[in-house]
Amino acid sequence: MRNVALPLLMKQHASIRYGLGSLAKQNRLPIRWLASSSVAFSGLNSPTDDDAKVLHSLLQNREGSMIWNDADALERYNTDWTKHFQGHSKIVLFPGSTDEVSSILQYCQERRIGVVPQAGNTGLVGGGVPLSDEVILSTNKMNLIEGLDETSGLLKCQAGCILQELQAYAAQRKFLVPVDLGAKGSCCIGGNVSTNAGGQYFYRYGSLHANVLGLEVVLADGRVLDFYSAISLKDNTGYHLKHLFIGAEGTLGVITKVALHCPRLPNARHAAFVACDTFENVLKTLATAKDVLGEILAAFEFMDAAVMRLIQRDKKVPITQEGGDNVYPYCVLIETHGSNSDHDMAKLEQFFETAMGSEAVVDGVLAQDLTQLHDLWEFRESAGPIVASTGYTYKYDVSMPIDQFADLIDEMRQRIQAVHGSTDVAVNPNWGHVIDGNLHFNVTTPGNFEFDADLKTAIEPFIFESVVRRGGSISAEHGLGQFKNKYLPMCKDEVVVDTMKKMKQLMDPHGILNPGKLLP
Amino acid sequence: MRNVALPLLMKQHASIRYGLGSLAKQNRLPIRWLASSSVAFSGLNSPTDDDAKVLHSLLQNREGSMIWNDADALERYNTDWTKHFQGHSKIVLFPGSTDEVSSILQYCQERRIGVVPQAGNTGLVGGGVPLSDEVILSTNKMNLIEGLDETSGLLKCQAGCILQELQAYAAQRKFLVPVDLGAKGSCCIGGNVSTNAGGQYFYRYGSLHANVLGLEVVLADGRVLDFYSAISLKDNTGYHLKHLFIGAEGTLGVITKVALHCPRLPNARHAAFVACDTFENVLKTLATAKDVLGEILAAFEFMDAAVMRLIQRDKKVPITQEGGDNVYPYCVLIETHGSNSDHDMAKLEQFFETAMGSEAVVDGVLAQDLTQLHDLWEFRESAGPIVASTGYTYKYDVSMPIDQFADLIDEMRQRIQAVHGSTDVAVNPNWGHVIDGNLHFNVTTPGNFEFDADLKTAIEPFIFESVVRRGGSISAEHGLGQFKNKYLPMCKDEVVVDTMKKMKQLMDPHGILNPGKLLP
Repeated sequence: MRNVALPLLMKQHASIRYGLGSLAKQNRLPIRWLASSSVAFSGLNSPTDDDAKVLHSLLQNREGSMIWNDADALERYNTDWTKHFQGHSKIVLFPGSTDEVSSILQYCQERRIGVVPQAGNTGLVGGGVPLSDEVILSTNKMNLIEGLDETSGLLKCQAGCILQELQAYAAQRKFLVPVDLGAKGSCCIGGNVSTNAGGQYFYRYGSLHANVLGLEVVLADGRVLDFYSAISLKDNTGYHLKHLFIGAEGTLGVITKVALHCPRLPNARHAAFVACDTFENVLKTLATAKDVLGEILAAFEFMDAAVMRLIQRDKKVPITQEGGDNVYPYCVLIETHGSNSDHDMAKLEQFFETAMGSEAVVDGVLAQDLTQLHDLWEFRESAGPIVASTGYTYKYDVSMPIDQFADLIDEMRQRIQAVHGSTDVAVNPNWGHVIDGNLHFNVTTPGNFEFDADLKTAIEPFIFESVVRRGGSISAEHGLGQFKNKYLPMCKDEVVVDTMKKMKQLMDPHGILNPGKLLP
Repeated sequence: MRNVALPLLMKQHASIRYGLGSLAKQNRLPIRWLASSSVAFSGLNSPTDDDAKVLHSLLQNREGSMIWNDADALERYNTDWTKHFQGHSKIVLFPGSTDEVSSILQYCQERRIGVVPQAGNTGLVGGGVPLSDEVILSTNKMNLIEGLDETSGLLKCQAGCILQELQAYAAQRKFLVPVDLGAKGSCCIGGNVSTNAGGQYFYRYGSLHANVLGLEVVLADGRVLDFYSAISLKDNTGYHLKHLFIGAEGTLGVITKVALHCPRLPNARHAAFVACDTFENVLKTLATAKDVLGEILAAFEFMDAAVMRLIQRDKKVPITQEGGDNVYPYCVLIETHGSNSDHDMAKLEQFFETAMGSEAVVDGVLAQDLTQLHDLWEFRESAGPIVASTGYTYKYDVSMPIDQFADLIDEMRQRIQAVHGSTDVAVNPNWGHVIDGNLHFNVTTPGNFEFDADLKTAIEPFIFESVVRRGGSISAEHGLGQFKNKYLPMCKDEVVVDTMKKMKQLMDPHGILNPGKLLP
């Protein structure tokens, strides 16, 4: 296994990224199934011409610091890349500093104007898209990297830094940004923190609650909450308020700066792509990986046959049955991070011996270098955009005990097939961070970009009820936004929801921050 | 090095634990220098005989569920093991369930009676000791371990479980509780979470913010906030409120249940004890350990000559200069956790080669088995209790960039010596989690258990100012309690302190929860 070259990685397809790229534009005239008509928020005012003038002046009337009343220019800020959510804002502001964010919020609170913080706009629950005509506050121009302390691994930067750029900056200094996800080329660290993004290395490096050491946040009234300028690896002084803003989707304050703890870049990174005949064997393979790879295991991502068949239209699958066109029922991408390549390869050999010996794994390839490793990831990360380009796509990000995955998928497939009586009309491709109990469950209608109300009704809210019944979460890592906020009471009890509402009332008494998101 | 037996580990001294054991009683009549007189809280009432009757009835009048007006029995709950803090409570309650905690808080809020949650009472900042005559709510009888899911590593238990018992329970199932500290034999997981305890494996496994997956908390009004009954490894639904209670010292609610994520027990654990001539070489050794040991590095703890000389009175030091009585200027305890012992030993060999080759390390021993490993830890963990038994001890837990440690210690030693003009009257032993930038700075007066006001004035608040000037924290892991709460504004700005106060007001409007703690 060790010396088997990885024959099938393809180079002819350029990397496809989430975000504001060409792919979203390929989606042919999707019907917007949520938030297609403007929602007026009681107590909030629409920004006027006069407001725009004042707001622009707060940004020194700089060129490029505001878009006002320009439908074409506004379009990409008023919708998300999946085109599921549509806002009606007439204004986007591009502050360059914390002070400018502070002035904007102070003004908007006084005038009772809603503000939607927006970063890379790569979210999947409409958290960064206005529901009505709120002011969009883009962090895109706040992209200064302040530095990385090479003793402590502390990386400090403005919230609008693009994740991939931070990763490159850290890597040059032999550090690793402890969060990674498919949207890295467009998403911003402030958005990652605001949505408590998970991603592929969650198992190894932990959540953003573990890795965010400092935050600077502008409150609704414009005051600046500074958990950023003086930070230590360990600080146990007073309430740990920064965690309130991690995953708050900009509803409690606007994150302007982030300090991240970065582990050292591993000396050795290896990746394998293996095939399993059944989902049960995926789980056996996971148990073997945890046992044998131990502390070097960094990622364990599964994909099922349905998603690989869809990707196959654009890209070669790394391994197929007998090298032909038939994909395996399941494939898994495994990555290791370690300090000693020889030790890691020895562990990987032992892993393959055990996993293939028990027939949990039936085929596999090992990346021979970092280029092949990145190609394997490109294949895995293309799942989201390629499925979305196939047809109208219904996306669900859920978590549950891993022994429940297959059963939930079966249950849902039966409901989906019942709508049209055929498996061809609606396809259910699945992938996800199985090691974290995190399933990305998707339904798409190949070649059909029209919203199908019957199909959606067959899926929702049934899938959420089913996940909750299985002890899982209706949002593992994507958040609630404007998509799932109404389902919050399904998974959190009355006291929790009430306390969350009180928290919102405390931090944003006039409700100007990202109205209509997160809370029901 | 690998085959050198560890000759000097001693067995004749039983393990000394923090807590409510015999050691605290050895302290001869210490003067209480903080909170020696009762503080009355405006708006709060003292519990009366009638209150005691009602409160006892809420606990079904069970035998052993209340101590009332019994000075001897109350003593150990009214003071801490260092005898620095003295409360005046007349009542301790021992609820057995969340419902009982809920009834107690509901009653106390109605009657405006202060409540001090107390777990193992092993804290060092008086966070669990009443300032006046508040009700002490002990979680000692809430010690049910609900279970450990062997697929996900999720451990669920009541808050009063003793840390060491949880560790043993998890270890039997091949899992590791990701927090460990000297007080493990007495401290409880609820107290660990409430104080955001750090400990020896913080670097490897992260903070409690990383590892607490679920909490059940009783609010001041008796309602139960349930982030516990349904939990997933990943759950991104709504505000992540559980983090508010991690490190809140019981001032926002009483933690009744904890769900922890436990990593797998490492197959291989190794420990080394090495000597360095200078603190600069300790830092060089740390850099080598991070480079060479990489992902298996689990702990890196330093001790200086002053603390080893004090411990030496009771216990043999693992390595000394030429095996005699002279201790080295610095020693470091290093532990590794890995899945493959051969690989780990190879890394350790390489570490020793590099560290001794560069003369950063001048001597060292390697534990040959787990018994020797535990003996090394027993030596390290005896620092706190043995120093405290030496004389009146002033304890400071601070963090700062590690290249500032030696300078701060020099600066403080000059101030301390200036008080008495002699190094013998007041000794400054230091140890700590240097890998986390966490220094345990101590001053003790050997043979003298009287409080020395001049000495304290020389240290405080200067040490905190000096740490803040160096970009550090005045409390790395011990919290603020009633000791450091007045210094909070020194390290957090007005907006932060104001927001913390508003949070307290929101969650505990009548101020019954642990009054006089954490906030200034």
